[in-house]
Amino acid sequence: MRNPIDLSVYLVLDANLCKTPQKMVEVALEAVNAGATVVQLRAPEWKKRRLLEAARLLKTNLQGRVPLIINDHLDVALLSGAEGVHLGQDDISVDDARAVLGDKAIIGLSAGNLQELPEKETTVDYLGVGPVFATATKKDAGSAIGIEGLLEVIQNTDLPIVAIGGIHAGNAPSVMQAHTDGIAVVSAICASPHPAQATQELVEIVSKAKYQ
Amino acid sequence: MRNPIDLSVYLVLDANLCKTPQKMVEVALEAVNAGATVVQLRAPEWKKRRLLEAARLLKTNLQGRVPLIINDHLDVALLSGAEGVHLGQDDISVDDARAVLGDKAIIGLSAGNLQELPEKETTVDYLGVGPVFATATKKDAGSAIGIEGLLEVIQNTDLPIVAIGGIHAGNAPSVMQAHTDGIAVVSAICASPHPAQATQELVEIVSKAKYQ
Repeated sequence: MRNPIDLSVYLVLDANLCKTPQKMVEVALEAVNAGATVVQLRAPEWKKRRLLEAARLLKTNLQGRVPLIINDHLDVALLSGAEGVHLGQDDISVDDARAVLGDKAIIGLSAGNLQELPEKETTVDYLGVGPVFATATKKDAGSAIGIEGLLEVIQNTDLPIVAIGGIHAGNAPSVMQAHTDGIAVVSAICASPHPAQATQELVEIVSKAKYQ
Repeated sequence: MRNPIDLSVYLVLDANLCKTPQKMVEVALEAVNAGATVVQLRAPEWKKRRLLEAARLLKTNLQGRVPLIINDHLDVALLSGAEGVHLGQDDISVDDARAVLGDKAIIGLSAGNLQELPEKETTVDYLGVGPVFATATKKDAGSAIGIEGLLEVIQNTDLPIVAIGGIHAGNAPSVMQAHTDGIAVVSAICASPHPAQATQELVEIVSKAKYQ
């Protein structure tokens, strides 16, 4: 039985915005102290030695506070003791990932439309749906699906959903109105001069939408 | 206890030269039928879904004949049942790889000079030493170390060594004179219009050097 995951404010650490593993830890701690509920490490530009170094540093610092999710690489998740992985449609499949990581791992899947929904919902813990808005952070992201695209996916799955892609404090209220379980942000926190303040603002928007 | 590995003619399948998993299997089978002793899958340009597909296809076709080695990705090695991994200096460390893959896995390490030799030789099964000659196949390869550089490494380690980098039938005899255990080739087989013939020629050069 897997633990439920609180997707409210889901920070994706980006290698281009956080240039070093140390900088990633700094931003992650500021964000988690301000209420971020999940941290994902995504650094396709980095070789695995550096990626694993970052994963282990993050795991040590976040242990017992929020889940650490590794983008793409099961081996880095295994070796760092991260709570799970986030997989794209071209990454290792959810079933294969489950076979390697076991029942307790958190496995998230990116889905931009109904065709990308998993056949069996039972093996996936949450969906990352987007890009809701245009984003410059992820070069291989598809075109923006808008709130309409997000709503369409939400209405066709029972899985928890975190919306992603170009989300910031300005448009987060409209995203939350689609009844998503949370928002994933990269530059809204990583590129902010004040990550704690930026996180806090997003936490307030999400709480307000969820509990009002 | 690990099985010894015959490094004589070590084929590295390249994603740019073999455009598809199916093409990789074709080339690999031609080469193995002609005497190649190891097959490595190296496709940093591919996403992991495709990489794993290629690894599984190769494993099915090479099973019981020659070891299949996966470049870089432990998760792909685990899921495909490959015999081992080949690691660069910036990849996951040999000790970490051993922890994930277990005692029986073959683990190779790239080393271009004495500084890159492993601290403990006991955990590594072989070294890939090069690039001996200039190569266009691997973009992040260092500058050529020449036969002199190869000799220097050979004289300072007891590990089995496969020489790599710009090796073809023309220069293979000079490489074998350095008493390397084998030669690794990419384009000499993958880019050849006759992979079987190209392999056979290399096998003859290596056999002649080793057993004469």
